[in-house]
Amino acid sequence: MSDMIDVGDMENISLGATVLGTGGGGDPYVGKLLAIEALRRHGPVRTIPLDALPDDAHVVTCGAMGAPTIVIEKIPSGEELAKALRYYEAASGRRVTAVIPFEIGGVNSCLPIAVAANLGLPLVDADGMGRAFPELQMCTFNVHGLDACPVVLADERGSLAMVETRSAAEAEGIARALCIRMGGQANVISFPMTGKECRMSAVPATISLARGIGRVMREAASGRRNPLKALIAHLATTHYGLAKRLGAGKISDVARQFRNGWAIGTVTIAPFDGGEPFRLQVQNENLIVARGGEVLASVPDLICLLDIDTAAPLPTERLRYGQRVNILGIRAPEILRSEAALRIVGPRAFGLDHDYRMLA
Amino acid sequence: MSDMIDVGDMENISLGATVLGTGGGGDPYVGKLLAIEALRRHGPVRTIPLDALPDDAHVVTCGAMGAPTIVIEKIPSGEELAKALRYYEAASGRRVTAVIPFEIGGVNSCLPIAVAANLGLPLVDADGMGRAFPELQMCTFNVHGLDACPVVLADERGSLAMVETRSAAEAEGIARALCIRMGGQANVISFPMTGKECRMSAVPATISLARGIGRVMREAASGRRNPLKALIAHLATTHYGLAKRLGAGKISDVARQFRNGWAIGTVTIAPFDGGEPFRLQVQNENLIVARGGEVLASVPDLICLLDIDTAAPLPTERLRYGQRVNILGIRAPEILRSEAALRIVGPRAFGLDHDYRMLA
Repeated sequence: MSDMIDVGDMENISLGATVLGTGGGGDPYVGKLLAIEALRRHGPVRTIPLDALPDDAHVVTCGAMGAPTIVIEKIPSGEELAKALRYYEAASGRRVTAVIPFEIGGVNSCLPIAVAANLGLPLVDADGMGRAFPELQMCTFNVHGLDACPVVLADERGSLAMVETRSAAEAEGIARALCIRMGGQANVISFPMTGKECRMSAVPATISLARGIGRVMREAASGRRNPLKALIAHLATTHYGLAKRLGAGKISDVARQFRNGWAIGTVTIAPFDGGEPFRLQVQNENLIVARGGEVLASVPDLICLLDIDTAAPLPTERLRYGQRVNILGIRAPEILRSEAALRIVGPRAFGLDHDYRMLA
Repeated sequence: MSDMIDVGDMENISLGATVLGTGGGGDPYVGKLLAIEALRRHGPVRTIPLDALPDDAHVVTCGAMGAPTIVIEKIPSGEELAKALRYYEAASGRRVTAVIPFEIGGVNSCLPIAVAANLGLPLVDADGMGRAFPELQMCTFNVHGLDACPVVLADERGSLAMVETRSAAEAEGIARALCIRMGGQANVISFPMTGKECRMSAVPATISLARGIGRVMREAASGRRNPLKALIAHLATTHYGLAKRLGAGKISDVARQFRNGWAIGTVTIAPFDGGEPFRLQVQNENLIVARGGEVLASVPDLICLLDIDTAAPLPTERLRYGQRVNILGIRAPEILRSEAALRIVGPRAFGLDHDYRMLA
């Protein structure tokens, strides 16, 4: 890939990030606009491949946390993350030399690009989830034992909070309480780490992956080819390896609520072939899809609903009765499928009574 | 007063602080034990009269926030406040030269003594409330325009959070969310200020006041004199000026719940003389007492219930059906009765539809 991200890349990245958002991660639309604005003002952002990151780099993750249903209502100014990063630097006495998305899925692919442009920092071509997950401790950085703290949160009213805890799960609990108080959505800096730590724990090349997904799907659409087929073919050439159509149908019910700071719900999809409906469980992201008693795919593998006509990936907050969708499964990259990773991002970490079986 | 606080002062201070807690502030019992332990280990704490505080002193308030009903269940180790103070110092690059209670009422009279002893710091003989109040922004420091932030909170699980906001009321909101997440009670450092700022905004001589109240009440009790009469006579000689028995009766109902991080409730007292019952409204502290349509006393004046036999001041979390009580009103010191102060600690600041009328 080119080692620069410019305005022209943002449509591809935000489309790819919506696929990788697996229903959640927040609609990239607002993040894309913030990134475009920042890139226009400050010029392109340089990306660093994970394996080229120097040992002594000082990297922090950045992004937004909260319910995706709220991210589309409460629009950030773009200054919050920069404020949080500067607050971290002042309190820690450290200088940040690169930023990385804590998740590639959804809006958190774009916000770090905006921050990198605004602050003149390079962006690591990698992330901490390889998709989107609802909780902070579900980062590969935590799986590899890195400290999530200090976690700095900022809201659009100018409030800041810096959190230190003994574990990433406790940091998640406190940050979630702050996030709810901040209106259901907050901007977050976390996991300060060295370049060496980042190299051994991040999911590699996911900014490139998002851009690649967006490019092949948009090229297919403009060439009147099938974007879903193009997507499946493209993913087979990446380190994710496998994508598979699990079924298709019409959404017959969406039960969704805002609870404990998350968008929680169940989506029922009536298949075109008749028979048992598909049931999809959601906690910000699509967690598990089953039909009859059979689990078709579950976390950490990715589950995406795509509009049957346009192949547009559909975030959970946009789902509604009557939509006709393809259900796509994407195998998670290897780093998410280790035993240590499955304890943190496998089905049981979400309270689901199901052992992970890799999509095959 | 002597300018040292030693183990022998703690019974007097904690009794006086319970009176000044006006039903809230948290039972000083645990705080007293922590202070005694710290004084035994490190020797007496030096107090500084407010007017002797140097201009360039760097003072922070310290204490606990949360529902007093929880403070008696979730016992601090005594390390939390010291950790919070050191965290503030490390993040701000400032060195704290003295501590001050943010409120003198209840447990927050004792915790700063424990911190001062543990860290070898002097204690300012003053506080930010002259009593107890349920919210952080109800400090005289805020009335005088000082910044509450950074506010640092620590819990007994080793979690820390540092908060920066644009107003003390917003800091209260965020700190309250953290406090609830931390189990309903948290240890708090706030209002970093210079000695000069402290001198112009604190309620003076309230550590001495608490000790003096405790001393005269305990001396009266041991000399078989009436502690309530001794208390009323003593307060007339202080800068508070007036205390007055408002009635007496038997508690006939206590409706209390833990809501939004506070102990909220209504206490009904059936008077011995028959007629209309007294009704006392509580938000951690006793806010207002009325009989029939008539308000007898309200914030910021102090309302205390004292056991009719022993004159022991009764915290709201200890109230129960059948207790026989004297109802005592104490006029608030002048600094709490200014127009600016009443906007923040007057009846309407608590949602009560009543103008303040000074106890007379």
